Amino acid sequence: MTRVGYFQFDPQFGKVDKNLETVLGALNKVDVDIMVLPELAFSGYYFTNRDELESLAENPKSSQTIDALVGLCKERDFYIVTGFAEKSEERVFNSALLLGPKGIVTTYRKTHLFNTEKKVFDKGDTGFVVSTVRGVSIGMMICFDWVFPEAARTLALKGADIICHPSNLVLAYCQRAMLTRCIENLIFAVTANRYGTEKRPQGTLSFSGQSQVVAPRGKLFHRSAKDEEECFVCEIDIAQARDKKITPNNHLFFDRRSEFYELS
Amino acid sequence: MTRVGYFQFDPQFGKVDKNLETVLGALNKVDVDIMVLPELAFSGYYFTNRDELESLAENPKSSQTIDALVGLCKERDFYIVTGFAEKSEERVFNSALLLGPKGIVTTYRKTHLFNTEKKVFDKGDTGFVVSTVRGVSIGMMICFDWVFPEAARTLALKGADIICHPSNLVLAYCQRAMLTRCIENLIFAVTANRYGTEKRPQGTLSFSGQSQVVAPRGKLFHRSAKDEEECFVCEIDIAQARDKKITPNNHLFFDRRSEFYELS
Repeated sequence: MTRVGYFQFDPQFGKVDKNLETVLGALNKVDVDIMVLPELAFSGYYFTNRDELESLAENPKSSQTIDALVGLCKERDFYIVTGFAEKSEERVFNSALLLGPKGIVTTYRKTHLFNTEKKVFDKGDTGFVVSTVRGVSIGMMICFDWVFPEAARTLALKGADIICHPSNLVLAYCQRAMLTRCIENLIFAVTANRYGTEKRPQGTLSFSGQSQVVAPRGKLFHRSAKDEEECFVCEIDIAQARDKKITPNNHLFFDRRSEFYELS
Repeated sequence: MTRVGYFQFDPQFGKVDKNLETVLGALNKVDVDIMVLPELAFSGYYFTNRDELESLAENPKSSQTIDALVGLCKERDFYIVTGFAEKSEERVFNSALLLGPKGIVTTYRKTHLFNTEKKVFDKGDTGFVVSTVRGVSIGMMICFDWVFPEAARTLALKGADIICHPSNLVLAYCQRAMLTRCIENLIFAVTANRYGTEKRPQGTLSFSGQSQVVAPRGKLFHRSAKDEEECFVCEIDIAQARDKKITPNNHLFFDRRSEFYELS
C-alpha cells in the first residue's frame, strides 16, 4: 500500500518564509510516501505584474525553500509534489516539482495557463512527464490543466498511476470533473487546493479549497472543507490503477480507436 | 432557440413493430426540432448470438421502421436521432441515424463496442461525424463512447453544438460524466437512455434510465427517473455552445497545446 496525502492551507502572498514554516510544521508530523502541496504554495498566486513575480520566483537549484523541503524529505523519508514559482534564467514558470530525499526528481511547467497568469508567466515547455518513485508512477498537472482531458489522458497513457495536482482553484467545476478524469483513465488523483482570499491591487480572488483524493473508478476517498486547513493522508492500492479492464471484454487503452480521433 | 428532447422508454426485445408503435405514439404529440431515442430502440439490446442479431437488424434504406420515422419527421417537421441495428451487406452495426423530412441525413456506427456487443456487432467504421440541420451542428455518439474523452472532443473540434447520445446504459457513471464532457467541450448533450430489464438466455441486464439534457457549463436541464417512461423537450440556445471563451484570456480550443498531447 502507498500512503498519499495533501496539505490544504492558506498561503500568505509574498511571505515565502512564513509559508515554508507553516508547511514544515504540518508535514513534520505525517507518515506518508507522497505528499502534495498547492500550486505556488510559497510565493502566493495573484501577482500584480511580472516584476513582482520575478521578485518572488526562485531557481529551485539555489532556493532555500527547496533545500528545506528536500531536507524534510530526507529526514522523514518521503516525497513532496509542490507548486513553485520557478525562475529559469529569463523565464518564469508556474511549475510543480517532485522532490525526494536526494533532491529534485522532476520539474513540470504548467501547460495551460489560466486567465491573468498569461500576463506574468511563461508558458510551460516540459510537456507531461511521468516519474517512478518507490514503484509508483507519478504524473503531475497543475490546476487549470484539468479542463483539457488531453492532459490527464497523456499522463495515463504514459503510465501514470496517480496524478498529483497542485491547484489554486477559483472556479467550482474541477473537483467533480476530477472524478471523471479518474474514471476515464482508471487512475488515482490527489488535488491539493488552497483556501483563503488574496486581496491585491488589481482585484480579489477567493480559492475554493475542497482538496481531494479520488480512486480509479471515481471513488472519492476524502474531500476537505472549503475554508479549513487540513493535512490529509490515506492508503491507496496502486494495483487498482494498473488494471485497465473495464469489463471482461473491454480494456481502457486497447479499446481506444485513435484512427478516428481528430485532435490536432 | 432550438427545441431538443428525448424519449426514454422500455423497448421490448425483438418486438420491432410494438416498439415503433410506442415511439410513434409518443413523438406524435411533441413540438420539437431534434428528438433523440435510445440505442437499438426498436430491436432491443441483449442479443444471444449473431444469428439473432441478423434476424432483427435491417438495412435502413429498405426498412419499414425507418420509413415510418421519416414519414413522421415529414409530417411533424422535425429531426430524429435514433439507435438502430443496421445491416449493411454482410456486416451489422450498432448505429445512430439522423433522420429528417427528406430521409436519412447521417449514419454513425458505434466506435467503441461495450462488453458482449463485441461478440455480435461489427466495429463502427464511420468515425465521428457532424451534420448541420436547421443551423444546428449535430454530433452523434452511442452509449459507451462516453468513456473515451476523445469521442466528444473530436465532435466538438469538428464543430458540434450538441451531442445526441442514444444509450442503453447499465453502469452508473455516465450521467455525471456527461456533465464533464459538456464543461470540457462547452457543448450541449442529450443522453437518451432506456430503462427496464432484458431477461435473455445468457443473462439479465437492467438499464439505468436517467436520460438527461446538459448545457455547456455542465448545467443539468433535466434528468428523468430511473424507471419511468418520459418524453422530455426543452429549449436551448445554441449560441452558448459557440462561445468557447472560458475567461477573458482563455479560449477552450485556441488554448489547447496539442504539441504536448501524446494520444496515439
